[in-house]
Amino acid sequence: MQRTYIKDLREKAGSEATVEGYINGRRDHGKLCFLDIRDLSGSVQTIVLPQNADAHVASKDLRPEWTVSITGQVNKRPERMVNKNEQMGDIEFEAKSITVLSRAQELPFAVDAELNIDTKLDNLPFALRSKRSRAIFKVQSVVTKTFRDFLTSQGFTEFQAPKLIGDDAEGGANSFDVKYFKHTAHLAQSPQLYKQIMVGVLERVFAIGNVYRAEKHSTTRHLNEYTSMDFEMGFIKDHRDIMRVENDYFIALEKALRETCVAEFATLGAEIPTVPQDIPTMTLREAQALISKETGVDCTHELDLEPEHERWLCKWSKEKHNSDFVFVTHYPTAKRPFYTHRDETDPTMTKSFDLLFRGVEITSGGQRNHDYDVLVSSMKDKGLNPDKFGYYLQAFKYGMPPHGGLGIGLERVTAKLLNIENVKEATLFPRDINRIDVLLSK
Amino acid sequence: MQRTYIKDLREKAGSEATVEGYINGRRDHGKLCFLDIRDLSGSVQTIVLPQNADAHVASKDLRPEWTVSITGQVNKRPERMVNKNEQMGDIEFEAKSITVLSRAQELPFAVDAELNIDTKLDNLPFALRSKRSRAIFKVQSVVTKTFRDFLTSQGFTEFQAPKLIGDDAEGGANSFDVKYFKHTAHLAQSPQLYKQIMVGVLERVFAIGNVYRAEKHSTTRHLNEYTSMDFEMGFIKDHRDIMRVENDYFIALEKALRETCVAEFATLGAEIPTVPQDIPTMTLREAQALISKETGVDCTHELDLEPEHERWLCKWSKEKHNSDFVFVTHYPTAKRPFYTHRDETDPTMTKSFDLLFRGVEITSGGQRNHDYDVLVSSMKDKGLNPDKFGYYLQAFKYGMPPHGGLGIGLERVTAKLLNIENVKEATLFPRDINRIDVLLSK
Repeated sequence: MQRTYIKDLREKAGSEATVEGYINGRRDHGKLCFLDIRDLSGSVQTIVLPQNADAHVASKDLRPEWTVSITGQVNKRPERMVNKNEQMGDIEFEAKSITVLSRAQELPFAVDAELNIDTKLDNLPFALRSKRSRAIFKVQSVVTKTFRDFLTSQGFTEFQAPKLIGDDAEGGANSFDVKYFKHTAHLAQSPQLYKQIMVGVLERVFAIGNVYRAEKHSTTRHLNEYTSMDFEMGFIKDHRDIMRVENDYFIALEKALRETCVAEFATLGAEIPTVPQDIPTMTLREAQALISKETGVDCTHELDLEPEHERWLCKWSKEKHNSDFVFVTHYPTAKRPFYTHRDETDPTMTKSFDLLFRGVEITSGGQRNHDYDVLVSSMKDKGLNPDKFGYYLQAFKYGMPPHGGLGIGLERVTAKLLNIENVKEATLFPRDINRIDVLLSK
Repeated sequence: MQRTYIKDLREKAGSEATVEGYINGRRDHGKLCFLDIRDLSGSVQTIVLPQNADAHVASKDLRPEWTVSITGQVNKRPERMVNKNEQMGDIEFEAKSITVLSRAQELPFAVDAELNIDTKLDNLPFALRSKRSRAIFKVQSVVTKTFRDFLTSQGFTEFQAPKLIGDDAEGGANSFDVKYFKHTAHLAQSPQLYKQIMVGVLERVFAIGNVYRAEKHSTTRHLNEYTSMDFEMGFIKDHRDIMRVENDYFIALEKALRETCVAEFATLGAEIPTVPQDIPTMTLREAQALISKETGVDCTHELDLEPEHERWLCKWSKEKHNSDFVFVTHYPTAKRPFYTHRDETDPTMTKSFDLLFRGVEITSGGQRNHDYDVLVSSMKDKGLNPDKFGYYLQAFKYGMPPHGGLGIGLERVTAKLLNIENVKEATLFPRDINRIDVLLSK
């Protein structure tokens, strides 16, 4: 019989169906045996009665994480028996025949056991099967899918940015070396230079892919390989065009999450954020003045916000504007990379922004330098050698419109959406200084 | 005035609009000046008349690849003046005012000049702007978008596969070394092991991302960094379930290309392939018998098809079945990786397949070993050490359903779709032994 996904069993009430999935749990009451079966779409309680003799015998051997194909009767439960906390709580599946597809050895722990992070990472291929982990990565896939769908609807084209780069022109302390035949290549820290080149080609582009930072810390915030969602667009007026696109993306994301991920947020005990039509915005100097006035700590001469001040500002934005998000604009030129466009009214400041969400920065973006001469002089100001950027500079030599863009850290935004403390839990296969899948030998 | 994309100008016929884009060409007839303006959506002929004095003066300075904002009158051309070869040939745009957004230096060659591959690669950030290149990467984005959209509609979830891997357990001749703090890591040659692990988590998964082969050749077929479109799915009967999904993907792709890329195929002089409902299928042994019979060359004892025989088979499939595609199944166990499932009726053969398209293999796939003991013994048969695969093997130790999947080389399939001879032309930023963006120093 053709397989039915568990979420579709309701349509088969009163008739037979075949379900395929994992034994999520088994409770043997002697005569009666209850199996909890899970597939990619959900889980369902399955009852095995003694009168279905073959199935009843087979059920005695079953153990968690065995995979099975079960044909049986789909019954609607009487109203008083409905389990309202379960997706399929109004359905009971009565097994008539059971085929074992694969067996499992004894498990190191129950699939939904609470684990400390090291135990989890040591057992990740198994631990990722927990309801919690599956919810996290379902949500993460909706974050990327919505990014793609929304930007495509706005005329953006996806491209594949290279990860293997040559001269590490931006400076190398944080870059990994790759032995590339007789040469040394590097792993890209961002697709920045390529997406700007692509503005000259396709005008509005985006890329989702891995980027690399050789950070020597192993903390709850650091990853050495993470996923960056980037876009870049031409013919903008200034950085506010970029912020508008990002604001609209998060509005689209809220809608997608409410449509498809309510159960997953419930599993994590997290709340889907309400995204305002216009996310509150202030300049860095305005934010610092506010923080100084309200907290009594003078930060008005700092070049950036301290983590505690980012948290304070988000709390303020939530209380004052009922927004989990707040844009901070106009960071000092001294703190932003060479490609950042200066503010014409105050060249010590840039037309740049960060987006803060639930206490942390999840995006950096802004308008870029599009004028060849300005770009070259900006490199020199930063102590960079323009000769090393000859390839990139071609794009500007031969005509580049005013443009800008941003990058969003996928794992970090996933973690903040779901109130996950350690970003590694929002990363499928996290790499840090001590671990690539397994602990690295000392 | 709000910008109008060129493709939407028709809706503004009889009124004013603002167009922003590149000067694609300029023909100065003294009194009259014609500008060809291109944006991400198309191009339009723009006329500058002497009576629009400011625009007329401004037009004298304009040069190719300058970016401009032009406000003007949209006119429908009289029937006899319509240029049927142009997307916007029924429209003329009359400039009233011209604002220069950015300038360009003198170009090394015209944007649509025909170039040899080395000149093109040396000047890639500019050369990618040619109509031909833009068409190639538009088509490529439709190939990936359709892969995502189709698989999502079939219950697949996207995941981010790591590119940075630890022990290079599959054997290292073709792998790049990465200096990872005090250790040596590697760049992934495929997401194979991770996507199998993910079958245990989300059952149906896909990933699109870069993979790496340290091939020392620089040919028209080799890339050291390319993009692999991978999927993997659980609860299959055998490899034919995977072939069915791939066949249906290519049917969806044909539809998407006919809806969105007719002009791009015309630019390349290529034909959108007709994908049969059931792509012709034969076993390797059947294919070899056919080739031997028809060509007189006995290849019936070979473990694989020679490139010339792949071409012959595709030609045969086209003539006999009017199909640009042909599946070849059941490659010898000796030629396939350790994770490949053997055919129960003949264990010297595997439940694997290649998809050939227009003369070359674009996919390898098949059913995988899901049984822990079988997998371990298969590793040993191949001379691999199961201890090095402990992490991966957890997924099998704790229950894995029958499953399979495939990988499609994005750049290769793009090249074959568009009749491009050198796969580097279907790669945005190709890397080979001699070049990462620029030529590597000797």
